[in-house]
Amino acid sequence: MKSFLPSRFPLIQAPLAGAQDAAMTIAVCRAGGLGSLAAAMLSTDVLAEQIETIQAAVDAPFNLNFFAHTLPDVGAAEDQAWRELLQPFFDEFGIDAGSLPAGVLRRPFDESQLAVVEKYRPAVVSFHFGLPEKSLLDAVKASGAMVLSSATTLAEGLWLQENGADAVIAQGSEAGGHRGMFLAHQPAAQLGTFALLPQLVKALNIPVIAAGGIADTAGIQAALQLGAAAVQLGTAYLLCDESTIGALHRAAIEKVARHPEQCDTALTNVFSGKPARGLINRLMREVGLIHPQVMPFPFAATASGALRRAAEAQGSTDFTPLWCGQNPSGCKAVSAYDLTRELTAAFSRQD
Amino acid sequence: MKSFLPSRFPLIQAPLAGAQDAAMTIAVCRAGGLGSLAAAMLSTDVLAEQIETIQAAVDAPFNLNFFAHTLPDVGAAEDQAWRELLQPFFDEFGIDAGSLPAGVLRRPFDESQLAVVEKYRPAVVSFHFGLPEKSLLDAVKASGAMVLSSATTLAEGLWLQENGADAVIAQGSEAGGHRGMFLAHQPAAQLGTFALLPQLVKALNIPVIAAGGIADTAGIQAALQLGAAAVQLGTAYLLCDESTIGALHRAAIEKVARHPEQCDTALTNVFSGKPARGLINRLMREVGLIHPQVMPFPFAATASGALRRAAEAQGSTDFTPLWCGQNPSGCKAVSAYDLTRELTAAFSRQD
Repeated sequence: MKSFLPSRFPLIQAPLAGAQDAAMTIAVCRAGGLGSLAAAMLSTDVLAEQIETIQAAVDAPFNLNFFAHTLPDVGAAEDQAWRELLQPFFDEFGIDAGSLPAGVLRRPFDESQLAVVEKYRPAVVSFHFGLPEKSLLDAVKASGAMVLSSATTLAEGLWLQENGADAVIAQGSEAGGHRGMFLAHQPAAQLGTFALLPQLVKALNIPVIAAGGIADTAGIQAALQLGAAAVQLGTAYLLCDESTIGALHRAAIEKVARHPEQCDTALTNVFSGKPARGLINRLMREVGLIHPQVMPFPFAATASGALRRAAEAQGSTDFTPLWCGQNPSGCKAVSAYDLTRELTAAFSRQD
Repeated sequence: MKSFLPSRFPLIQAPLAGAQDAAMTIAVCRAGGLGSLAAAMLSTDVLAEQIETIQAAVDAPFNLNFFAHTLPDVGAAEDQAWRELLQPFFDEFGIDAGSLPAGVLRRPFDESQLAVVEKYRPAVVSFHFGLPEKSLLDAVKASGAMVLSSATTLAEGLWLQENGADAVIAQGSEAGGHRGMFLAHQPAAQLGTFALLPQLVKALNIPVIAAGGIADTAGIQAALQLGAAAVQLGTAYLLCDESTIGALHRAAIEKVARHPEQCDTALTNVFSGKPARGLINRLMREVGLIHPQVMPFPFAATASGALRRAAEAQGSTDFTPLWCGQNPSGCKAVSAYDLTRELTAAFSRQD
């Protein structure tokens, strides 16, 4: 099967902010997949350094992923409401809620990141949470990059096609991590891959990439059967040698990969302020999965991050965002190169 | 592809309580699918009459579907709390909440329904919400029926296999109508077909039937690719000539089938007390999709049904359960015979 993507195979390693660096991108690219680098949590300097590492290691196209949210105006009242919700936990750990370090905030795509794109010219640039404003997007396209973004509903897919995306990622509700929602606002109304993918394929004129619940070659072939032009897998890479998830997160994924009947995930906004899928843990249970008092994205992470660090220091995942999709059965403790080779056999079989 | 089901093709028309009668069962069976009859809302007499109609019309196997819930003990306090939640709506329609007619309650499978099974000996009996108690189940199996039930999680699938099901329906979260949940209790943690189906196939030794989001032959082939031994479609049949849904429900489905980007569904317990997927409407929005004060299944239907009748009399679907899956793109105003013939072409292509 010919790839409409610049990579040899139409398979994208999902950008995994906080769970990967250049090493994973390189391994996937070497195997003929489209490796991604998640840029949203990196400073411009670190981002440039990571790209240079990739370009020095492999002469293959790769994908740079950015967030395209807008930073909300939040005041002291919202901050106060959110901290009050967490006060019992702060008390438990003896944390002074008045003096939390800001931590690394997820940044929306801006001029400084555009400068990096223009300098290094990645073959593909993908966005999450919509697309950046027109002048920035036009400049990205002028750099020669193919532009992708995620749709979680048909309305979002139509909007992305209308507003300049070259292809759309159908992010089924099975997917782990942050939902790409930017027009949709109800987590409870998000669509499963089996419903979202074929309807986007039918409605759009541009290629549709399937994401969410795909764990192996059978999953890839099923996605192609439903009209996908490519697939994107994230959770499957979480146990790879190149994954940078912490030891506690890794242990949690190892457990549900072995015992999928214990894989209880849900969408929650309590960690970052935007809905994302992770293994259900104490913070999600005790605050509630989706709570209106959570600070808007990305600011909620300041307070939840402080609790996470305190709990992790005691070996607890009670406050850790354990991002994970609904189908961890494809997770393997092998190199991302080997996993990609194994997965891309799905395409050779179709030739 | 050979059917493990007694029908010619491994395709089940999902039982549609309140949306079908014998006419649909007959049409599907004539086309070589496994037609179902939803028995939960029928009196024993009407059920027997419907079965006789089927058996007089077609000499083919069919499926009788029952509910296997347990009737909860609810007192005046729960009833009061639920009515209070609805009081503003009762006021709006001038309904006396103290004197509501009980309406048709969904009945759990019992001795009187067993007697019907033993008399008419349907080839297949399926249950929703688990399985009936052992003595009843043993008697159903002794009648010669193949027994199916729905799993919404791996744990439910393993339980059903352990407790006597001959095959399990993997009910992905895309499916319309009531979730089969009987061990799972969090609607927000329900799995999409792409995640649930292959994991059940891997975990179980008995055949797995895919349901949820399947709308056409491509969807059927994708489900087979993921290891399904058969498929079950419900939403696709809602616009068929034989569908008995009301004119308002039909118009709502027609609209989203034409404009799938407007198909906003969610799981809600406000109509019956148990989570079910339907088009989002006023009662769901104003009470909240899942509310703890809703009377347990099936008793919530008494109060919500009174509001439904009052609103429908004014041409409004504000209080109507508009059951619908996440993929209405396969709905067609044709006979269930023609739709089944069209869908089962998916299997011939595999021969």
